[in-house]
Amino acid sequence: MPDHLPPTMPLDALGVRLAARAGRLAGHTSSLAPGFVQGNLAILPAALAGDFLRFCQRNPKPCPVLGISEPGSPHIPELGLDLDLRTDLPRYRIWRQGQLVEEPTSIAHVWRDDLVAFVLGCSFTFEHALMEDGIRLRHVAQGRNVAMWRTSIACVPAGPFAGPMVVSMRPFSPADAIRAIQITTRFPGVHGAPVHIGHPHLIGIEDLSRPDYGDAVEVADDEIQVFWACGVTPQAVIAAARPDFAITHAPGAMLVTDLRNSSLAVL
Amino acid sequence: MPDHLPPTMPLDALGVRLAARAGRLAGHTSSLAPGFVQGNLAILPAALAGDFLRFCQRNPKPCPVLGISEPGSPHIPELGLDLDLRTDLPRYRIWRQGQLVEEPTSIAHVWRDDLVAFVLGCSFTFEHALMEDGIRLRHVAQGRNVAMWRTSIACVPAGPFAGPMVVSMRPFSPADAIRAIQITTRFPGVHGAPVHIGHPHLIGIEDLSRPDYGDAVEVADDEIQVFWACGVTPQAVIAAARPDFAITHAPGAMLVTDLRNSSLAVL
Repeated sequence: MPDHLPPTMPLDALGVRLAARAGRLAGHTSSLAPGFVQGNLAILPAALAGDFLRFCQRNPKPCPVLGISEPGSPHIPELGLDLDLRTDLPRYRIWRQGQLVEEPTSIAHVWRDDLVAFVLGCSFTFEHALMEDGIRLRHVAQGRNVAMWRTSIACVPAGPFAGPMVVSMRPFSPADAIRAIQITTRFPGVHGAPVHIGHPHLIGIEDLSRPDYGDAVEVADDEIQVFWACGVTPQAVIAAARPDFAITHAPGAMLVTDLRNSSLAVL
Repeated sequence: MPDHLPPTMPLDALGVRLAARAGRLAGHTSSLAPGFVQGNLAILPAALAGDFLRFCQRNPKPCPVLGISEPGSPHIPELGLDLDLRTDLPRYRIWRQGQLVEEPTSIAHVWRDDLVAFVLGCSFTFEHALMEDGIRLRHVAQGRNVAMWRTSIACVPAGPFAGPMVVSMRPFSPADAIRAIQITTRFPGVHGAPVHIGHPHLIGIEDLSRPDYGDAVEVADDEIQVFWACGVTPQAVIAAARPDFAITHAPGAMLVTDLRNSSLAVL
């Protein structure tokens, strides 16, 4: 248990969850519990959960489902035995009619018996695999958020859920781009292989200096731009669907699970 | 046995070898025995074979070894039980002091007890896998040879064998380029994943309209150029080393083996 660990030891996944649960962690999770899978959170009323799950099934690259709670349950044991989705993320966003109304550090006060929670894979896992292979990620080196754009690629709709695919872009040398395609192909549960390389205008991206989300990143003339489906897609789709009620994680404040990143490699 | 097959039936690997052996086939093998592995042939005196094998080991992308004969033996049973390297290719090239001196349909008259034969993987195998996946190859559609260039990428030398890597280029849509990287990654025994994408000047290719070998191919503005290590590399390296005596296949007149293309997939 983390209570027994010396304070200089890095927290493991449970340690991060307990810190968030105790109110001692309200910020980003990006460098915490290295090696453990972090996930995007989306919580919807059960009446919409079937439509949303169908949306995820039809759009697995932006919406890779890692776990789903039973209706009314804030637990997903396969992602962490003790895990409590009401308290274990550092910060949440509460949406009503598609409007952001609150950014609390717990959602215990708004939990309902009809809520269904979805945990979706996140690029942290494949970024970890890239860095373990010695590939440098410029936005990480510069301490920025990855650059993201809405594209002209339409998601396959399901019920009220529809909209464009959001992608993240990372620039690489040609050799690293090839290697990055190989490595991320092994991780279909966290966006998988890129959806595009090299010609951003073909997917509706006109201005590389102005991402729709995150921070712009420099691209050298001799680099290849590599685009992955992004977990912002389901959040944008949920906001656009304007459900009466929804909860997501706050940007960067992810659910830290007990799964190892390497366990999501298909080979 | 092919003698029992109706004449309209496509030849299998043994049928191609028997036709070459009988002198009924002296041309290209590219569309023959579909699904079977075809290989590049290089034959050297035993005194040079160790150096050449070391060269292949150090440069596996251009020189993937599928089989090696015992010194003096024209057989490689693991590639075909009946296989006779002196007769089973449609056409050969005989080199003396690095000069092409003869292009016979059999090398029985020049076989020696000190010769060692190398069979190296060839791009036909991964091209077959690409086409089976529905990816169109422009040079195939246009009935041309693939475009090839000497690059600024130096092979790792071994003994007298040294020189630049030769690459072949195929243009694809970005989505097909990603898929082609995934598919060819599964085939390390036949050049494997590409060595470069997108910026030919970075590997010393200045004029895309003038390949060093093969035929030029059009590249559209919205395509990605994908470059693979090429089996012309060992032939160019052998020619440059000017051994007293060497034999290779004639361009396009490959050894057809009993291996299935799919058997070379590592997964």
